[in-house]
Amino acid sequence: MGNQKASQDTIKRLFVYYRTIEESYSSNVISSEELAKLTGFPATLIRKDLSFFGEFGTPGKGYYTEKLIPHLKKILGLDRDWDVVLVGIGNLGKALLTYPKFKMHGFRINLLFDSDPDKIGKTCAGLKINDIAAIKEELAYFSNGNSKKIAILTVPAKVAQEVTNILVDAGIKAILNFAPTQLFVPQGIAVSNIDVSNEMARLTYNLNQDFLINVN
Amino acid sequence: MGNQKASQDTIKRLFVYYRTIEESYSSNVISSEELAKLTGFPATLIRKDLSFFGEFGTPGKGYYTEKLIPHLKKILGLDRDWDVVLVGIGNLGKALLTYPKFKMHGFRINLLFDSDPDKIGKTCAGLKINDIAAIKEELAYFSNGNSKKIAILTVPAKVAQEVTNILVDAGIKAILNFAPTQLFVPQGIAVSNIDVSNEMARLTYNLNQDFLINVN
Repeated sequence: MGNQKASQDTIKRLFVYYRTIEESYSSNVISSEELAKLTGFPATLIRKDLSFFGEFGTPGKGYYTEKLIPHLKKILGLDRDWDVVLVGIGNLGKALLTYPKFKMHGFRINLLFDSDPDKIGKTCAGLKINDIAAIKEELAYFSNGNSKKIAILTVPAKVAQEVTNILVDAGIKAILNFAPTQLFVPQGIAVSNIDVSNEMARLTYNLNQDFLINVN
Repeated sequence: MGNQKASQDTIKRLFVYYRTIEESYSSNVISSEELAKLTGFPATLIRKDLSFFGEFGTPGKGYYTEKLIPHLKKILGLDRDWDVVLVGIGNLGKALLTYPKFKMHGFRINLLFDSDPDKIGKTCAGLKINDIAAIKEELAYFSNGNSKKIAILTVPAKVAQEVTNILVDAGIKAILNFAPTQLFVPQGIAVSNIDVSNEMARLTYNLNQDFLINVN
């Protein structure tokens, strides 16, 4: 707790604990052993992860879900809604736009951008596709108390850095990057990369090994 | 080298090194400092990662790209083509089906499955959508020397485990899982999870912190 920093792997597991209890557990108390069975993570790791953020239960009995769930949501920033801009309205962008889990977790995609003149001005899932060149002006309207804005980037790799610079300049503070390239951002901007080819390569690497393991 | 195991984080970086050199570097020799500049990873980490797999250069000069690239491809299993089955032909599945980078890296999606009677028998990107119930028979035809088969899973979370059991039973050895749930597989099956909500939660966690960092 306090000033110590949780690892990104811990954060990923916290989300899994939260999602698992929320979706497939109904009792008031859950033990680390029960949560281990549901998630596949070792009970000792679960206890270590959760103790890092405070006390949510009684030793020997378990965690009180009514206490734990709101706390996990708060830690993860899921106790509020987030406005999200989507940049790049190709097949992947469109799939994410209608991804039901986003709305459920409070991620509301409500601004779309593209640079393709054939797409600009058209509508997708009820939202107008805006010109990326006008992102600063559009983002100025885009505020309902959220000072920190998130962008999902699904543009081709070769323009991703240029678009990232525009996003950062326009005040975006976090980027979920699907473009298969490394992004360079100033300090203070959070970037998370999802590269499906890289994940595939991890699998083929593992298929090439004698020892096969569950890689995530 | 040899019997030691590289971490999954190392494997992810190896892919980034490979992709970066292949796509944006043209000289015969690249130093760890140049690769650091292009990827954002520290030069010391790059040297450590690469030395784990052998000698690819001359100290003080750099790595020979003609030697390094084929080696990285071989380590990652990208020196050959892989047949891939796609299970779940929704919006995300369709986006992945036409994802150009897959073909480039040798991942060939050539069998489609769904359980929706409205989809079965229809065609998507030139491929017939098969009934998941017939996967064993279909996979029997599906062999061109590849003994290890990969599946991409883009089905709803609530059926993901059931479908996974079918896939494993049908001989699938690696699964790229987009379903937002934990999968349980027997030893010897590689699973890699891509959960976009979890990645978003990592960003919102980081936005909630005073210290903002590049999380991946």
